[in-house]
Amino acid sequence: MDRRTFLSGATVAAASVATACGQGTQDSSDSAPAAPAVNRNRTRQLRMVTTWPANFPGLGTAADNVARFVNEMSGGSLNIRVYAAGEIVGAFEAFDAVSTGTADMYHAAEYYWQGKSPGFNFFTAVPMGMTAQEIMAWCEFGGGQELWDELAGEFGVKAFQAGNSGHQMGGWFKREINTLEDFRGLRMRIPGLGGSVLRELGGAAVALSGGEIYPALQNGTIDATEWVGPWNDLAFGFYREAPYYYGPGFHEPGSCLGLGINRGVWDSLDSDHQAIIQAACRAANNQSLAEFQHQNAIALDVLRNDHGVQLRAFSDDIWRRVGAISEQVVADVANADPLSRRIYESYAESRRRSREWGNVSEFPYAQKRELVLGG
Amino acid sequence: MDRRTFLSGATVAAASVATACGQGTQDSSDSAPAAPAVNRNRTRQLRMVTTWPANFPGLGTAADNVARFVNEMSGGSLNIRVYAAGEIVGAFEAFDAVSTGTADMYHAAEYYWQGKSPGFNFFTAVPMGMTAQEIMAWCEFGGGQELWDELAGEFGVKAFQAGNSGHQMGGWFKREINTLEDFRGLRMRIPGLGGSVLRELGGAAVALSGGEIYPALQNGTIDATEWVGPWNDLAFGFYREAPYYYGPGFHEPGSCLGLGINRGVWDSLDSDHQAIIQAACRAANNQSLAEFQHQNAIALDVLRNDHGVQLRAFSDDIWRRVGAISEQVVADVANADPLSRRIYESYAESRRRSREWGNVSEFPYAQKRELVLGG
Repeated sequence: MDRRTFLSGATVAAASVATACGQGTQDSSDSAPAAPAVNRNRTRQLRMVTTWPANFPGLGTAADNVARFVNEMSGGSLNIRVYAAGEIVGAFEAFDAVSTGTADMYHAAEYYWQGKSPGFNFFTAVPMGMTAQEIMAWCEFGGGQELWDELAGEFGVKAFQAGNSGHQMGGWFKREINTLEDFRGLRMRIPGLGGSVLRELGGAAVALSGGEIYPALQNGTIDATEWVGPWNDLAFGFYREAPYYYGPGFHEPGSCLGLGINRGVWDSLDSDHQAIIQAACRAANNQSLAEFQHQNAIALDVLRNDHGVQLRAFSDDIWRRVGAISEQVVADVANADPLSRRIYESYAESRRRSREWGNVSEFPYAQKRELVLGG
Repeated sequence: MDRRTFLSGATVAAASVATACGQGTQDSSDSAPAAPAVNRNRTRQLRMVTTWPANFPGLGTAADNVARFVNEMSGGSLNIRVYAAGEIVGAFEAFDAVSTGTADMYHAAEYYWQGKSPGFNFFTAVPMGMTAQEIMAWCEFGGGQELWDELAGEFGVKAFQAGNSGHQMGGWFKREINTLEDFRGLRMRIPGLGGSVLRELGGAAVALSGGEIYPALQNGTIDATEWVGPWNDLAFGFYREAPYYYGPGFHEPGSCLGLGINRGVWDSLDSDHQAIIQAACRAANNQSLAEFQHQNAIALDVLRNDHGVQLRAFSDDIWRRVGAISEQVVADVANADPLSRRIYESYAESRRRSREWGNVSEFPYAQKRELVLGG
């Protein structure tokens, strides 16, 4: 995904707003609770702009969940209304809108703000970077949040983790990719740092919004595209035009979504309202990772069994080259400014530790489980 | 870990209670917020019994976080006080205490209640079972929560996910385990279904509480022990007596912790207080997984670099046999009663889907990342 995606997807004049309701499947309460107490002595109304079209599954769901959780927990004393991209400001303008106070908060992926500082990339995903669980650990306990506060604070924004897509796939290809040569001249829709890697391989990284991708595949303007994962990719029907689905991907191994709040608004909130927003972000992060895991698994079944999609994996030769280029592209980000370097170094050290722990625990466990259960 | 562990660790007459404070490192707010509004029209006091000793890192931290989040978010109108095992009731009695209303809620691992129904095992962990991310997906979106509601509901309890240890290691061994023969006669501290697997291998599964393990290793009563992961294992110093640390483990690949609430108490809560408890559980789950990831990675560094611990992995022959036995042991659980069977079947189907998704995404990504970055 990338930010340009959402411009065309957003309905500027849409009357419908993704409000904080209708997510009942995630609420496991089956009782009819008493009505909340209503006579609190303050009510706050906050406006959340997002970089997502209205009712956008997965990424938009996380934004809606933050608002729903806050509204429910505060008994209506803190009321967040969610606006799709284009309703108040365009997707690209969400950060500035919150920074200047035009809106109170945004829900987005922080790498959309890499034009302000390349350091923002690390708070979403970088090629060959952290998995979802790893970036959660870095942000919450490994020093990431403090660096994020410093970076976003330069713009008057306070940001939190508030969603995670889990692993994103390598993309859909019209032809098989067997050697590094197959990337030469390949016209692929892939944004950001992943696109930089493709260009180093001799390919042409194309920027297209979500709604433009399918027609471009159909008319041959592009040969391949990445998007998110099976859940979102199935909805767009890419399998009809590009039958080879490559996984794993290298460019977004666990993309974090962020909630940014105007710093003055944040400081003006009562401490219980602050606690409610922070817990709502953490709860939404938890739900997001769980829902992507569940929905991607369901959608993969459908893609394989109902649509005959061909799963493919890049060769080790390709991984070695792509990996080396990725490391260089990411390291170059650190050259932008001293704060980006400190973020890079903190991220790299946390990734090293997490890799070493993962290498003796969950990752080999998954392999051994396949040794036992695999067909 | 197992429930007997916590009996000796709990200080029955201890005056100190793990109250909802002192977790400042997890609170990324660096501002001095305004005081919360105080004049709500109701205040509820709830008592949370736990199966953990006071101030128990990781597992106890999750319980403390639930209480802290609730207390902060409710502005004190919903006040949860946390009691260590033994303060009101013993660890074993936590479930009955909540079921009968002696206490309002518990924080525990649900497999402690397997004597009530073996189906409870699936809501913590089973051998060769789900990873943390997978069990989150099953419970929240794959039908797990509804089955959990049905099972706990038989006892007047409503339960939520409220913590996850991530992957648990295979344990500490005095001698290397190279073949299946090496399990014959092995006296190992390993509880529950993992212990059943060891017995099938010809070993002697020994039940020891946490405080009993180190002396038993020292005086030769046992040859090996499992516990949790590097974070908790380092604290007990097992490396001094059993130098071979095996990972990954097979018996607890992502142990979920649970919060159970007396159903009458739950139904009596205002809807905002219900929402606060549910979000606090989800936020605590998020924090728990992130903190175990971070702390285990740090502790593994210390074990390897400061204490010269020898990491070892079970052979593929061992995995095949242990895996096959595990599958049988877990399938036998389903024979206990019709509800346990339905839980088993739902769990098995969700695990299959998650495995197939994991096999083309995060798990091979981790392997390819090592191909690039590994030493």
